[in-house]
Amino acid sequence: MQTNEKIAALRKAMQAQGLAAYVVNTADAHQSEYVADHFKERAWLTGFTGSAGTGLVTQDQALVWADGRYFIQAEQQIADSEFKLMKMATPGYPDVKEWLLENLSAGDLVGMNEATLSQKAYEQMSEALAAKEICLQPLPSLLDPLWQDRPALPSAKIFAHDLAYTGLSAKEKVQNIRQQMAQDGADATFIVGLDDVAWLYNYRGGDVPNNPVSLAYALITDKQAQLFIDLQKLDQKMQDVFREEGIELLDYTAVPDALASLDAKKIALDKGLISYKLFKSLPQSIEILDRNSYVYLTKCCLNPTELACQKAAYKRDSAAITRFLFWLKREVKRQDIDELQAADQLHAWRSQGDKFLDESFSSISAYGPNAAMMHYAPSADHKAKLEAKSFYLIDSGGQYLDGTTDITRTIALGELTEEEKTDFTLTLKSHIALASAKFLEGTTGYYLDCLARQPLWQHYMDYKCGTGHGVGYVSGVHEGPQRFSKVYSALPLKEGMHITIEPGVYKEGKHGIRLENDYVVSFDREFMGDRFFQLEVMSFVPLDRDAINPDLLSAQEIAWLDHYHQQCYDVLIDQMATDEERADLKTACAPLP
Amino acid sequence: MQTNEKIAALRKAMQAQGLAAYVVNTADAHQSEYVADHFKERAWLTGFTGSAGTGLVTQDQALVWADGRYFIQAEQQIADSEFKLMKMATPGYPDVKEWLLENLSAGDLVGMNEATLSQKAYEQMSEALAAKEICLQPLPSLLDPLWQDRPALPSAKIFAHDLAYTGLSAKEKVQNIRQQMAQDGADATFIVGLDDVAWLYNYRGGDVPNNPVSLAYALITDKQAQLFIDLQKLDQKMQDVFREEGIELLDYTAVPDALASLDAKKIALDKGLISYKLFKSLPQSIEILDRNSYVYLTKCCLNPTELACQKAAYKRDSAAITRFLFWLKREVKRQDIDELQAADQLHAWRSQGDKFLDESFSSISAYGPNAAMMHYAPSADHKAKLEAKSFYLIDSGGQYLDGTTDITRTIALGELTEEEKTDFTLTLKSHIALASAKFLEGTTGYYLDCLARQPLWQHYMDYKCGTGHGVGYVSGVHEGPQRFSKVYSALPLKEGMHITIEPGVYKEGKHGIRLENDYVVSFDREFMGDRFFQLEVMSFVPLDRDAINPDLLSAQEIAWLDHYHQQCYDVLIDQMATDEERADLKTACAPLP
Repeated sequence: MQTNEKIAALRKAMQAQGLAAYVVNTADAHQSEYVADHFKERAWLTGFTGSAGTGLVTQDQALVWADGRYFIQAEQQIADSEFKLMKMATPGYPDVKEWLLENLSAGDLVGMNEATLSQKAYEQMSEALAAKEICLQPLPSLLDPLWQDRPALPSAKIFAHDLAYTGLSAKEKVQNIRQQMAQDGADATFIVGLDDVAWLYNYRGGDVPNNPVSLAYALITDKQAQLFIDLQKLDQKMQDVFREEGIELLDYTAVPDALASLDAKKIALDKGLISYKLFKSLPQSIEILDRNSYVYLTKCCLNPTELACQKAAYKRDSAAITRFLFWLKREVKRQDIDELQAADQLHAWRSQGDKFLDESFSSISAYGPNAAMMHYAPSADHKAKLEAKSFYLIDSGGQYLDGTTDITRTIALGELTEEEKTDFTLTLKSHIALASAKFLEGTTGYYLDCLARQPLWQHYMDYKCGTGHGVGYVSGVHEGPQRFSKVYSALPLKEGMHITIEPGVYKEGKHGIRLENDYVVSFDREFMGDRFFQLEVMSFVPLDRDAINPDLLSAQEIAWLDHYHQQCYDVLIDQMATDEERADLKTACAPLP
Repeated sequence: MQTNEKIAALRKAMQAQGLAAYVVNTADAHQSEYVADHFKERAWLTGFTGSAGTGLVTQDQALVWADGRYFIQAEQQIADSEFKLMKMATPGYPDVKEWLLENLSAGDLVGMNEATLSQKAYEQMSEALAAKEICLQPLPSLLDPLWQDRPALPSAKIFAHDLAYTGLSAKEKVQNIRQQMAQDGADATFIVGLDDVAWLYNYRGGDVPNNPVSLAYALITDKQAQLFIDLQKLDQKMQDVFREEGIELLDYTAVPDALASLDAKKIALDKGLISYKLFKSLPQSIEILDRNSYVYLTKCCLNPTELACQKAAYKRDSAAITRFLFWLKREVKRQDIDELQAADQLHAWRSQGDKFLDESFSSISAYGPNAAMMHYAPSADHKAKLEAKSFYLIDSGGQYLDGTTDITRTIALGELTEEEKTDFTLTLKSHIALASAKFLEGTTGYYLDCLARQPLWQHYMDYKCGTGHGVGYVSGVHEGPQRFSKVYSALPLKEGMHITIEPGVYKEGKHGIRLENDYVVSFDREFMGDRFFQLEVMSFVPLDRDAINPDLLSAQEIAWLDHYHQQCYDVLIDQMATDEERADLKTACAPLP
């Protein structure tokens, strides 16, 4: 079916339902950041395949909202259709709610898929539309009957995440959650996030690329711990593991009935994650406690076993990246290498590593001006050849049995301009300022974010993104409430949180620089009754000395860098495979002159 | 009457009203930070005279809450009475609400003075007490009939604040407020803050020491601009001024009737400032818009005339302080000087200055360990003699016709220990880090606060107060919503805001160091679509080179200091009176070696 045929078919279905508009979001039933192909209704309808966006169809309009990363791609992909691009966060373009309020009339109905619309989004949108007596009507997907070759729900097998990696049995984790429930007076909790369910029950899956999760729900009461999952995904051994842990197995499709017949007084759940459809199935008599899942707020602080594993994963991952960068610096002068080939080479090294499962996201492998696009990814059609000058940026990560990694390096492939060196060194100053922070218990990531931006703001440069994000444990590469951002969040940083620092300088048409390391929040010392924390580095890849202008660094900054490089050397030297690599490492890690 | 007699008389009055408890707060009818003697009911009842605190009496208990500044003083002042001290923010001590909930029973009545209890405090306390069915009952003061020699309401004359200082006529200011009202759909606004009313109508008064305000209210509708004030405070000329500006004069006591007969649909007011009594007098039919007063959020950004005046005031004030500090450094070696005499000497110099009205607060003149107490003030009984060693700290300010100042210097009176020099230099680094910040439009003071704390946190030291506060214009020395603090506030810094930077190191029994300058938020430049701001310094008093360890400063920090000292020299040289002062200035302002 061509896009315009799809639109026509949808309009017919809308008429049958009396809908003035139909909105297609980008979500699965768990509000995952990345979704399996089965759920890509918006991409199917509009032709626009970006990872975020919203489609909207009326009888005479067809619109698709995309954010700045995707303006060009979206324009190209919708060019042959009736769809028009609506640019998010751009003056002159209303958002979806505003557009509906401007263009619809009192009494009009707006349809959305009830299975992928969160209860919170439903409530917020309903309230906004009520201002003009427009009614949001969640209903079974109108696209599903039209989508003939829709991919099936993913069915990857799940595997046990052993105690050696988790530190706590599923039974212990459930017990901990029950204690938190008791403090809230809740006798049930329903867990929707795929990463939360997998962590809680100590398994991992393969339903979403780069995200080792599996479509599932958990329901915990005082007496029961249930897992709702496609039972075909479990072999006999896995079933035995769950049985031993006291986890009751039910089919994924049994969730609505289980909620409808739930015997509980007060249930804790996250309205931002549960779908309208499932929320509706809960008995009216149960009191709702809307809050972040207990699992989400527990697992964001690594336990000692997880932390030790995560550190080990970073050490191996750092070696793969370091060897790749040494190779690239040498070979770019000797052979033709493009961005895709470079990414493939890193993948080869990484995937040979111990305990490797997958990449944690599609690598951003960007040469020169391409790196100025923050989320650039090369493709078979669009890939630059690396030259022996200017910068190459690689942002990549791995999923291992013992951790999830995410790291960015920018390196000089040859001669640099003065401006390039200055921008690199300012990015380094920014990174060091935050990385070397000491902070009182209770300090927020928002408060500390200022340290990273100040060295760049002094030069009137600001990167248009956060400074750092939480990373899941053998899970999503963007996870947890922790972050460094100039958008306020009241959440304090806590011991055991895994967080990135990744400031950058992005100059359109020139270059992009990002230096990303990974840290864990750790206790430093108590003094005069105050408890101080610090950021302990976990990733060890030398920062390219060829790109640094030492004159711009203070004595403290140089001391931080020299110390970091000494750590890199100690961690990496035994992982270098050749004399050439060992010599390169020694040079890369020597103190600044 | 002795304190215990007062308690007995109050208990009798409480019985007559059927009250289980009576609470006495520290406030006037305008929720001023500092109040006229007439309003000091809590001090009269309890004997404790600190600037903040709360009294509470039941039939068998008499308690007074005080904060950490006043624990010792309060203990002494209540020693001969039944009152017992309740330490605020101290483990083991409930706050007033908690105490009432723990000690009273369902159905009990709690009395408070309806004229000095704000509507917001009433609502919040009522809601808290309702958890145990305890009822808050505002009523006419029970202390007023007992307080025989109660001071009269203050009656200082008011004077016009000329256009040369205000830049805008009262008529223009009223017009501006009406525009803001229209945006909110409000057809009336009631202004309660004494500083707000004085600024709006371009007058100043003398009802509260150090605060050039006068007891008054303003009521603005689409058609009227009214001032409620004791008409005895206005001479004929002042009355003419107001008449020309279209301001209607009414007696201070006419407010309740004016509100009761107000013909308006929607009134904007600040429930945190209006008293329960006045709020009650508003007709039920009027819709209430609870928000900060328009004046409060307008006057926190100095207009160009005000800013020019404020800068001029700082230049004169800086000269008085500089001359005083030079004098003190010399004379401490030659004569006996105590903390009070030092403060008096500064007052003498300051009050000889042009346009001087008053001090803006009681000077903190503290030698050695006394300066470790953040709000120390010497008295006739408690004053230390200055010695030619260690630190002297002076935190003081002036009220001038053209501005309000607030500045702190800490100077070496002779030999310093290594620890003293280090702590001084770290305080200086902290100050410079924030003072030299550049920041994007929309940045909060909370976000920037981190820059000042980080240099001290690196050494596990934290000052237990904000980093800086707003300063009023010929008004309160703590004013406006702007602040640097590690307590979050969403308010962004805006062009024209006057704000202090005053980090410090306080070591009990050793020394206290605070370095306070005054800044105005100013536009720096626009770059790549981003608007950047900076802090422009307005106070020019050399920072004591004798206390600095240059080895602890970076090249940038030294550059900031040298530039600041050059500015000090340029501003001050023509204000020095003797060759000796000029020579001292030259030495004090020379670049660091």
